[in-house]
Amino acid sequence: MEKLFPFIEYRGRKLFVEDVDVQAIAKRIGTPVYVYSKAAFSYWFNEFDSAFNDVEHLTAFAVKSCSNIAILRLLAEMGAGADTVSAGEIFRAINAGIAPEKIVFAGVGKRKDEMEYALSHGILMFNVESRQELETLNKVAEKLRKRARIAIRVNPDVDPKTHPYISTGLRTSKFGIDYDEAFDVYMKAKEMEWVEPIGIHFHIGSQILDVSPFEEASAKVADLVKALRDKGLDIEYFDAGGGLGINYHPEENPPSSSSLAERIVPFVKELDCKLILEPGRRISGNSGFLLTEVLYIKRKEGKIFYIVDAAMNDCMRPSLYDAYHHIVPAEKKENIEIVDVVGPVCETGDILAKERELGKCEQGDILAVLSAGAYGFSMSSNYNSRVRPAEILVSGSKFEVIRERETFGSLIEGEKIV
Amino acid sequence: MEKLFPFIEYRGRKLFVEDVDVQAIAKRIGTPVYVYSKAAFSYWFNEFDSAFNDVEHLTAFAVKSCSNIAILRLLAEMGAGADTVSAGEIFRAINAGIAPEKIVFAGVGKRKDEMEYALSHGILMFNVESRQELETLNKVAEKLRKRARIAIRVNPDVDPKTHPYISTGLRTSKFGIDYDEAFDVYMKAKEMEWVEPIGIHFHIGSQILDVSPFEEASAKVADLVKALRDKGLDIEYFDAGGGLGINYHPEENPPSSSSLAERIVPFVKELDCKLILEPGRRISGNSGFLLTEVLYIKRKEGKIFYIVDAAMNDCMRPSLYDAYHHIVPAEKKENIEIVDVVGPVCETGDILAKERELGKCEQGDILAVLSAGAYGFSMSSNYNSRVRPAEILVSGSKFEVIRERETFGSLIEGEKIV
Ligand SMILES: Cc1ncc(COP(=O)(O)O)c(C=O)c1O
Ligand SMILES: Cc1ncc(COP(=O)(O)O)c(C=O)c1O
Repeated sequence: MEKLFPFIEYRGRKLFVEDVDVQAIAKRIGTPVYVYSKAAFSYWFNEFDSAFNDVEHLTAFAVKSCSNIAILRLLAEMGAGADTVSAGEIFRAINAGIAPEKIVFAGVGKRKDEMEYALSHGILMFNVESRQELETLNKVAEKLRKRARIAIRVNPDVDPKTHPYISTGLRTSKFGIDYDEAFDVYMKAKEMEWVEPIGIHFHIGSQILDVSPFEEASAKVADLVKALRDKGLDIEYFDAGGGLGINYHPEENPPSSSSLAERIVPFVKELDCKLILEPGRRISGNSGFLLTEVLYIKRKEGKIFYIVDAAMNDCMRPSLYDAYHHIVPAEKKENIEIVDVVGPVCETGDILAKERELGKCEQGDILAVLSAGAYGFSMSSNYNSRVRPAEILVSGSKFEVIRERETFGSLIEGEKIV
Repeated sequence: MEKLFPFIEYRGRKLFVEDVDVQAIAKRIGTPVYVYSKAAFSYWFNEFDSAFNDVEHLTAFAVKSCSNIAILRLLAEMGAGADTVSAGEIFRAINAGIAPEKIVFAGVGKRKDEMEYALSHGILMFNVESRQELETLNKVAEKLRKRARIAIRVNPDVDPKTHPYISTGLRTSKFGIDYDEAFDVYMKAKEMEWVEPIGIHFHIGSQILDVSPFEEASAKVADLVKALRDKGLDIEYFDAGGGLGINYHPEENPPSSSSLAERIVPFVKELDCKLILEPGRRISGNSGFLLTEVLYIKRKEGKIFYIVDAAMNDCMRPSLYDAYHHIVPAEKKENIEIVDVVGPVCETGDILAKERELGKCEQGDILAVLSAGAYGFSMSSNYNSRVRPAEILVSGSKFEVIRERETFGSLIEGEKIV
């Protein structure tokens, strides 16, 4: 037995997820296919959630990282709430059985109809990202005659030391309201009839492997909470966002969720706030992977390509962020060679792995692109008129389809010949 | 009147596409919305196609660049064929009324079921990209007892001087068969019972603004054709691929299609081949644009953000390639300011334009993201559970929906709660 990630391991020469041989999945469902493990979701949810048991808290899963309703349902049963960024995500969360009182709604560009949708469903709170949004929300709430509970998303201006595309808490980013300005915006909110400030929010970035910036941010934001309370504002919720990183390589060790908790919880205790957390990747990332078949092997002078049936449209992260995903064969191979694993899409950037050591494969072999549970299927597209993969959920020795593979029919739905 | 692109111009202060005020479209259909012009498609198709009138030729539109069936139908009526890279694209082309004899099928990762689909529909030819693919195709064709007409995609190893992500004709890329090896592969193909080499193919990259590499590639490939003919191979089709660039700024001038023709046609004449071309962007790029509404304006110290309702999920090119799209207001503004135009998606990389001079806007204003007809909607996704935009086609003073905006229902189609 050789463990790669919790519930993802080799038994003998074969890759298993829980008690399922991944080749059996490829055979029955075809490839490419996203595979999730129920036990892994439960493991990662608990590893995270229990780290914060010292305080009253809500683990609001970041729906954007993995949006399948069956997955959200699973998490709902474990007690998760939802961090959402669109009405579509709220729709998903509610349909998965997540109680509206456990849903927060962030995002710099909330449309009015999205605000109405969220208000009419009675979500916990809006994380407001600009002055104009606050004013718009006040108007929408008035129209509906429903007060909008809000937090202001504060930009604590700390450097999360991650990829520039996913660091969001710096002053030059589009997100949140600058720290120095936030107090003033809260004062404005206090005067507004149809918004009710009940919390404070920050989110400093994604895939963060050094937890110290969370302490820096929490300290700054806690000071602000005190200042606001001095002015009579009842800030009840302390929302510290998501962003805790994972290991994309089985041999690396990411920080524990407890080490994150240590940075945040003391401030929350002192304030006697309720804590909200918005982990996405941390829970879903290593709970899923992508299976793909080797279609062709191309040996050029000094270069080997494994052409697989998954492409950038199925899994965008390598092309978009130059992200590393560990890739392993469904059945162990001898004779390591150095290869590029590439997809069928007609772009040079359609690469899943570059100059990677892999056991020598043949046509028809199955590979697993690991750590693809987060920002995998949720970022997929139909580019090159490719149907999106099926998604399946493993539990013990069983697996079930939780999203059917798309069909040619799905590709053209809504299209009309004029 | 101030012309931006053919059929896209200001009349007075208002942006028109053909005889339609774009604000009328935004009002009736909502935003974000992709807008295409029938007259522009016709203009760009003819500008391209007529440049090659000296030789028998087929302009096979690259479906990947803009895949809507109504658009393909339009092009079919003008005489276009289709360059496809998946069974899904062949399905689209056929449903749009493009004759199978006008369809070519390229791509490094053709699956067997895709080969069967293409064969059973009797497409013109397969552009074969590897030795293994050739062998697989021979077997599939045998099984169906239908000979597969093929071209070998030759990698001419010329530098197209474009973005590394979209330059495909270099030796280190996954595409095609190396020039030195191609002869040998043709000899193999000649011996195979179920494949019939009838053409030769190359495609050196995309958004190419210097046409000289086409001459270099054509010369190399023409030499190969001669060598193959000497061996008794009847190479009838010379497929020079796509890749001719466009101007992404109204004040720039891209090379004319005639200047491209000058580089290719002499070789084709000498060989007395039929010419195939696979333009995508050149025809669709400036035939469409994306309309989006300014939701919020955020003024930070030294930084202004226009937060619009279109995001990286709707239009991927700026995030993926750092691509430039010219952005103009639907109604001209005074007082230029320097702004970032960003979308609602929760990623710092969700940027449509960076530090761009734009007339000062207000909430509710409409902007047009120009040159978005190619690789716009076709690369769109549902990231952040955002429904994909509607697509509309303008003709004269009328416009019609050619693809409905998605709904919450479409987001979860095929999903099941286990
Ligand atoms: C506001 C907010 N919360 C939570 C998350 C989840 O981040 P992660 O998946 O890194 O935990 C994001 C990610 O973009 C976010 O923008
Ligand atoms: C084989 C092939 N032909 C044609 C095209 C179309 O390219 P363009 O849109 O630049 O004309 C592509 C683009 O990737 C391609 O790969």
